[in-house]
Amino acid sequence: MREGSEIPVDVLAAHVGGQVIGDGSILIQRVAGLESARKGAITYVEDEKFFEAASQTKASCVLVPEGADVKAPCRLEVKKPKLAFALIAEILHPPKKPVPEIHSSSVIAADAKIGKDVLIGAFVCIGENSSVGDGTQIRAGAKIGDNVSVGRDCIIHPNVFLEDGVTIGDRVILHAGVVIGADGFGYVRDEHSHHKFPQIGTVVIEDDVELGANTCVDRGALGRTRIGRGTKIDNLVHVGHNCDIGERVVIAAQTGISGSVTIEDDCVIGGQVGFGDHIRVQSGAVIGSKAGILPGKIVRPGVWWGIPIQPLDEYKRLNAHIQRLPQVREEVKELRQRVKELESVLLENRKT
Amino acid sequence: MREGSEIPVDVLAAHVGGQVIGDGSILIQRVAGLESARKGAITYVEDEKFFEAASQTKASCVLVPEGADVKAPCRLEVKKPKLAFALIAEILHPPKKPVPEIHSSSVIAADAKIGKDVLIGAFVCIGENSSVGDGTQIRAGAKIGDNVSVGRDCIIHPNVFLEDGVTIGDRVILHAGVVIGADGFGYVRDEHSHHKFPQIGTVVIEDDVELGANTCVDRGALGRTRIGRGTKIDNLVHVGHNCDIGERVVIAAQTGISGSVTIEDDCVIGGQVGFGDHIRVQSGAVIGSKAGILPGKIVRPGVWWGIPIQPLDEYKRLNAHIQRLPQVREEVKELRQRVKELESVLLENRKT
Amino acid sequence: MREGSEIPVDVLAAHVGGQVIGDGSILIQRVAGLESARKGAITYVEDEKFFEAASQTKASCVLVPEGADVKAPCRLEVKKPKLAFALIAEILHPPKKPVPEIHSSSVIAADAKIGKDVLIGAFVCIGENSSVGDGTQIRAGAKIGDNVSVGRDCIIHPNVFLEDGVTIGDRVILHAGVVIGADGFGYVRDEHSHHKFPQIGTVVIEDDVELGANTCVDRGALGRTRIGRGTKIDNLVHVGHNCDIGERVVIAAQTGISGSVTIEDDCVIGGQVGFGDHIRVQSGAVIGSKAGILPGKIVRPGVWWGIPIQPLDEYKRLNAHIQRLPQVREEVKELRQRVKELESVLLENRKT
Repeated sequence: MREGSEIPVDVLAAHVGGQVIGDGSILIQRVAGLESARKGAITYVEDEKFFEAASQTKASCVLVPEGADVKAPCRLEVKKPKLAFALIAEILHPPKKPVPEIHSSSVIAADAKIGKDVLIGAFVCIGENSSVGDGTQIRAGAKIGDNVSVGRDCIIHPNVFLEDGVTIGDRVILHAGVVIGADGFGYVRDEHSHHKFPQIGTVVIEDDVELGANTCVDRGALGRTRIGRGTKIDNLVHVGHNCDIGERVVIAAQTGISGSVTIEDDCVIGGQVGFGDHIRVQSGAVIGSKAGILPGKIVRPGVWWGIPIQPLDEYKRLNAHIQRLPQVREEVKELRQRVKELESVLLENRKT
Repeated sequence: MREGSEIPVDVLAAHVGGQVIGDGSILIQRVAGLESARKGAITYVEDEKFFEAASQTKASCVLVPEGADVKAPCRLEVKKPKLAFALIAEILHPPKKPVPEIHSSSVIAADAKIGKDVLIGAFVCIGENSSVGDGTQIRAGAKIGDNVSVGRDCIIHPNVFLEDGVTIGDRVILHAGVVIGADGFGYVRDEHSHHKFPQIGTVVIEDDVELGANTCVDRGALGRTRIGRGTKIDNLVHVGHNCDIGERVVIAAQTGISGSVTIEDDCVIGGQVGFGDHIRVQSGAVIGSKAGILPGKIVRPGVWWGIPIQPLDEYKRLNAHIQRLPQVREEVKELRQRVKELESVLLENRKT
Repeated sequence: MREGSEIPVDVLAAHVGGQVIGDGSILIQRVAGLESARKGAITYVEDEKFFEAASQTKASCVLVPEGADVKAPCRLEVKKPKLAFALIAEILHPPKKPVPEIHSSSVIAADAKIGKDVLIGAFVCIGENSSVGDGTQIRAGAKIGDNVSVGRDCIIHPNVFLEDGVTIGDRVILHAGVVIGADGFGYVRDEHSHHKFPQIGTVVIEDDVELGANTCVDRGALGRTRIGRGTKIDNLVHVGHNCDIGERVVIAAQTGISGSVTIEDDCVIGGQVGFGDHIRVQSGAVIGSKAGILPGKIVRPGVWWGIPIQPLDEYKRLNAHIQRLPQVREEVKELRQRVKELESVLLENRKT
């Protein structure tokens, strides 16, 4: 089912619960964008403003919303075209599944437990008492410490590092350069220097999590740092010690999360957001890119923006007020002039 | 003395200069947080609002401030409980000290000088004329260039890269993915393209420095980049060419420091702070997270905040003014109305 | 021509089109800064305020602007001293050119095409059907996937990862820890979970690009991500899927670029800037550090600043207005008092 296999539109329609309008026997080999699609490709359109472009596409089939006015000869009507497109791509372009192999250069502790159909690439290390579940790929150069548990069907990309004691669930994807379980950033100062606050906890990454390239998740100081099931985190994100990130959370690139922050299920966090420590973000909150949140805050459901964060509506209103500042200043100036004139008139009146 | 050793409370008390209230012969095996602590653990409390919780802890001993009203049966009174806790953790949980070994897969130049009791992990490279001090660990996959000096008792974590000519002091900890000595970011433009400004200086990391995962410290363009003794830097921080970071400075995650910035001793820098080039931060300054500092600024001692930075008090005052903007606008509107009425009354008066 | 070779000032003058004032036969071995320069070094001065220092330098020769009042005994007058200094440094300090070698520990696919005079370091992997051009260095621990093309005279530093299908031009420099071609960050949500939007495109890095340490460039979702010829990007930058970065663009450290952003030729982007998706930055725009740009914006030529961005002049003007807010508030307060007095006077008048 790797790219190159051919699947009839009818079969794809059954997979995504859609209705074919046109020739359901047409064979589809790949997904493609509206403009670059050619014969053999399926594409999708969701936004009405692209219906005209979708009518002109050279794709063999177009996923369209139910009843959409798109004129392509072969259409597949579904409730959510983009979702159906993603589901079809999972079939047409499954993740590369290399032949299982334990590369002769890898260094694996004698007591490590390696599952079935595992790929262990060149220059991989796996430490004592660690385990790797069935079907998992540990790609070239990844380093796994002692007492680490990696679940089934994971992809651990090149040069990832998993420190001692870390637990990784099933179907987890860790992109290249990810570091999990490094010491958290905590010190206690005396008169002369900084003493390391103990960083002896661990990290738990639950099932179906994906972490972007060069992202870092520190171990708990005393307890654990957790990334909940189905959460997706982008590149170059920092997750501090003892954070508890819930399920199905989405966090965009370069966001930084200080120690002991809780982000509940289903939150959406933009890029370059900064969290002070001990914040709790309640389920359903959405935090805009570049926002900053003060330590200890509780962030309620809703859309938040700015430094420090405020509800998006208030942020916009205040921003509009700021934009109008020059005008306010003009008005005040004018008022001063008018009041001055009133005062002089009254003064004159009194004299008379 | 690895985890699992048992130390009587009396011995710990002597180590941190505290007074035991209760049974000093109780054996302690590990540190733990107030809530998760069980038999065999020592915990601590510093803030009065947790005294009640500390009275209920299941820990075998609690570090408490002198004279604190905590009712746990075994208490250890000290001036600074958190500091004492860190000092005790250093004893109960010393850093893992693996058996010294030079892994057979490592590639070490013939003229490299390797000290005693050194660990060199799998897939490590050490270049020509480089040296590694006694007791240092170079973990799997770390790459060390030519003419690099690494001191004693350092921990160089997996996949760190030290470029040619870099100097690392004693007891330095470099977390996974750290890159030291890459070229600084400097170009001179002519009509057609950017020419690299020479990046031929070096980097000096002094004793007792700790750098977080995936942090980058560029080499000096012509001179050197320096990180002073005892300075602690978090994950994903960027330190540009020719920066001079003093001693005991603390820098939180994702902060970016442009070229030729000087940060004097004992400064504290938050996360995601941005420094323009050629800034000087004077000793004792504290810069809040997400602050931005314009090139060439001198930052005096005190607490600074915002973009561009201002003293925290002024920042708060201005922020309060901004929050009141809608009200000011209402007041101006109301004043306009009242002045208008005054004007019409006066006009009428004149007519009469 | 590595450091240590000696070149007469006359030869350097011919190379950069300058005029020697003094003894053109003096031999130069290296470049250096004004203050640290000693015998055998050439230095430069461009800014008049350093002319006095340049007159005192111990360098054997100083590059100076034409007609500059600098009194050093050997001067080389040029139009642009800093540019000439960079060009001379290219000769005196060429990049290290190690002896070509394919390290015995490297793992290279049987069908990979390796050019002439290539260095392949220890623990390097090169996948199936990939190619490496003449004169290129793939340093220790770099990992190259399948179907990757790397051009001529590139330097791929340690622990870089190039994912399957990526194309790298000629003379490209990728600093340590760079990740190119990881999956972009795109998901489609259904009621239960996030489904990966297909991330099956590629990345094209054109000639003469330089990417800083630990920078990440994601592959296109369906099309490609492109970094144009001669563009220079600093450390820890994130470039999202399907971005199209033009030629000779400069991007400073820790900037984050969301998916499908276009940055046209010759733009200059500061550090820690954040781009929403689908932005177009027109050729010649300059965006200040820490700026934030909303999704879908078109950024015209000129200098931009702030969150959200505005022209630098407006930003400064508004910032000045904000600084004056306390004064405005005082003025309004005073006006209220004066209007109140006017009203009471009028009221009294009426009564009488």
